[in-house]
Amino acid sequence: MAVQTVAGKSTSTSAENPQETPFGPAAALSCRECGTRYPLTPVFACLECFGPLEVAYDLPVGDPEGLRARIEAGPANIWRYAPLLPVPADVTQKQNLNPGWTKLVKADNLARELGVTGGLYVKDDSGNPTHSFKDRVVAIALEAARTFGLTTLSCSSTGNLAGAVGAAAARAGFRSCVFIPHDLEEGKVVMAAVYGGELVAIEGSYDDVNRFCSELIGDPIGEGWGFVNVNLRPYYGEGSKTLAYEIAEQLGWRLPDNLVIPIASGSQLTKIDKGLQELIKLGLVEDKPYKIFGAQAEGCSPVSAAFKAGHDVVRPVKRDTIAKSLAIGNPADGPYVLDIARRTGGAVEDVNDEQVVDAIKLLARTEGIFAETAGGVTVGVLKKLIETGQLDPAAETVVFNTGDGLKTLDAVSPTTGPTATIRPTVAAFREAGLA
Amino acid sequence: MAVQTVAGKSTSTSAENPQETPFGPAAALSCRECGTRYPLTPVFACLECFGPLEVAYDLPVGDPEGLRARIEAGPANIWRYAPLLPVPADVTQKQNLNPGWTKLVKADNLARELGVTGGLYVKDDSGNPTHSFKDRVVAIALEAARTFGLTTLSCSSTGNLAGAVGAAAARAGFRSCVFIPHDLEEGKVVMAAVYGGELVAIEGSYDDVNRFCSELIGDPIGEGWGFVNVNLRPYYGEGSKTLAYEIAEQLGWRLPDNLVIPIASGSQLTKIDKGLQELIKLGLVEDKPYKIFGAQAEGCSPVSAAFKAGHDVVRPVKRDTIAKSLAIGNPADGPYVLDIARRTGGAVEDVNDEQVVDAIKLLARTEGIFAETAGGVTVGVLKKLIETGQLDPAAETVVFNTGDGLKTLDAVSPTTGPTATIRPTVAAFREAGLA
Repeated sequence: MAVQTVAGKSTSTSAENPQETPFGPAAALSCRECGTRYPLTPVFACLECFGPLEVAYDLPVGDPEGLRARIEAGPANIWRYAPLLPVPADVTQKQNLNPGWTKLVKADNLARELGVTGGLYVKDDSGNPTHSFKDRVVAIALEAARTFGLTTLSCSSTGNLAGAVGAAAARAGFRSCVFIPHDLEEGKVVMAAVYGGELVAIEGSYDDVNRFCSELIGDPIGEGWGFVNVNLRPYYGEGSKTLAYEIAEQLGWRLPDNLVIPIASGSQLTKIDKGLQELIKLGLVEDKPYKIFGAQAEGCSPVSAAFKAGHDVVRPVKRDTIAKSLAIGNPADGPYVLDIARRTGGAVEDVNDEQVVDAIKLLARTEGIFAETAGGVTVGVLKKLIETGQLDPAAETVVFNTGDGLKTLDAVSPTTGPTATIRPTVAAFREAGLA
Repeated sequence: MAVQTVAGKSTSTSAENPQETPFGPAAALSCRECGTRYPLTPVFACLECFGPLEVAYDLPVGDPEGLRARIEAGPANIWRYAPLLPVPADVTQKQNLNPGWTKLVKADNLARELGVTGGLYVKDDSGNPTHSFKDRVVAIALEAARTFGLTTLSCSSTGNLAGAVGAAAARAGFRSCVFIPHDLEEGKVVMAAVYGGELVAIEGSYDDVNRFCSELIGDPIGEGWGFVNVNLRPYYGEGSKTLAYEIAEQLGWRLPDNLVIPIASGSQLTKIDKGLQELIKLGLVEDKPYKIFGAQAEGCSPVSAAFKAGHDVVRPVKRDTIAKSLAIGNPADGPYVLDIARRTGGAVEDVNDEQVVDAIKLLARTEGIFAETAGGVTVGVLKKLIETGQLDPAAETVVFNTGDGLKTLDAVSPTTGPTATIRPTVAAFREAGLA
């Protein structure tokens, strides 16, 4: 397992001295398809089979109680899980937005409305620094970029990621240059631009933006650039594992029965599964079955369509939904999502835009949580899964809100406003029928 | 000190058994002007002198180490300070949004730009559930309303409070009916309405809305209503003390030299001072001098004007600023703010709208924090205080961001957007001069 890390940066091995390597317990990159291993460098595709690379670890097995204690003594952010992430042990000393450790809200009111009797929780990632789960993945990618000596942080984005990259780069002292489709929500555009980096709008869809970034990375222009979701993708993806860790710890170190997770590229869902598996392997939680459910918007539901048709491949689709943060027509991790949903006994389901809006309002009205459209998709899908008998309401369920309603105001603003506008008198209040 | 709490609710006294009273260590309401004491009921003005009432405590003095340990073992929200707040000991069991324990960000980049050498921190309250400090004050007011058996939660609001009340009421199962000026930012209006309570827009300014609420509370319509910032104001205000507690604890149980705090009604600033004084009295921190600086927007700066003129009274003004969340022309706690600024050796300063926008962008560019206009006011004022020699840059300073940039997009959107819009090709990227 003596794998060299970055050429010229370190020759110590993670197995010998994990505290001193720049990637902590990470041992190598490994191809998800053929298992070929590579050093920890900014590469993302297997030279043998073009499969996606992911981080492989020498995890600290054998002392679950010591590890739990170490985690619990850590900071109230994702770095409490540094022993399980591809980051150096001194990561808490770096300038970083320190995302994570967001609330796991016991959602008794929502549970009542949906008929869930086994316990319902909302993992609310709107509490992150830029109010989406993207802060988690960017934080890990940024530390990798720092280790690799990259100086520009970049990404293709449906909006949330652009803000997360802009903010993280600003704080960490990186230049940033991010790429978005030209038709995003105003809140996301302003949030992507306000941190002072370069923001480039692309005339095309998110899939066009992605293709452009892949082209740019092969061009001399892209030298010294870390595209968090392209050449830093193996590191980036690991950030989503922290959602699994936090849920387990916040439940008192145990696993829920069901998890309802949104699908854009599918990366988040697959990494949450990876995180849950690690928790079991490390003995941090009891080994028990759990079911993973994927949630898509009907207007961009290639994975749901494949799941329902019983296919193993995901056919790309055009996107047409208000849930723009999930609108990836050709989701890279789609086949892995199908595997996980089937292996765990879960499902992939979708809801239409009207159901998304209704679900946003349902969550707000019952729990005081104003979710992004992506949160409307997961809550809407949870409702549909129960109604169609696909999810057992007597089991314990965690549903994810990965973003913030303030970024997708357009989805609810046509149907959300003052009950009345009146003159400032009690008589006017009475006349308006509000008394 | 045997003060009856709510008539018919409890006759135990806080001094005898603080754990079992509905208001914990709170002993009475006390007039800030003449000191007359009243039972803990939903009243807000002294019958003797019309002075404002505030909560008086029998605080747990004498065992600072035990108290510190108890706090540190508490939850990661304001309820860790329940021993110092007017709430029951079982408050963590209630349905509440559990705000607080937001990040205290070490702002080294901003410090460099401003020439601060003594250490600079941003207390970033945009991490609260509805992304402003108002969640803190509403949480306390809501628990008081629960104890008093009130069933409708209400407020007058410049926007942030409306969202905080709507969300908290939804989660806690209260009816809500909130009142806002008719010309608020879209984000704040939608956020106030999305939780499903009643939202009434008033044709007039915030001061008109306030007058209307005072009228409504005296009307039979208002029976059973808890206006968080009117009849529940004494409880509500106490929520701001938690900002002082958190800063001291996050600094390792010590006080900073300077605090730069926004002024709307002035309540927040006075309660932060109250919290700091309590920390000293309880022996939780070493007694040392600190300076409190108040920050206003030039377009609504009655307290700053009074401070500069050496007056003790605050003359009401008309409001004309983009910092709408601070735009209170007749600030109730203005005179107390003047007292505190003068007593501690601080100051009250103001900046114009252009400086507010510049400061929002400065904070975003340096620390990756996207502040509301109120945060632009405090950072802008900090800059001005340093430039004018009023604040010592060699001293340790905490500057407050009390809200979220996503709620005041209009302030920055005219000058914040994509660097370029291009076709998805490397050639177009090069042509745009971005390479």
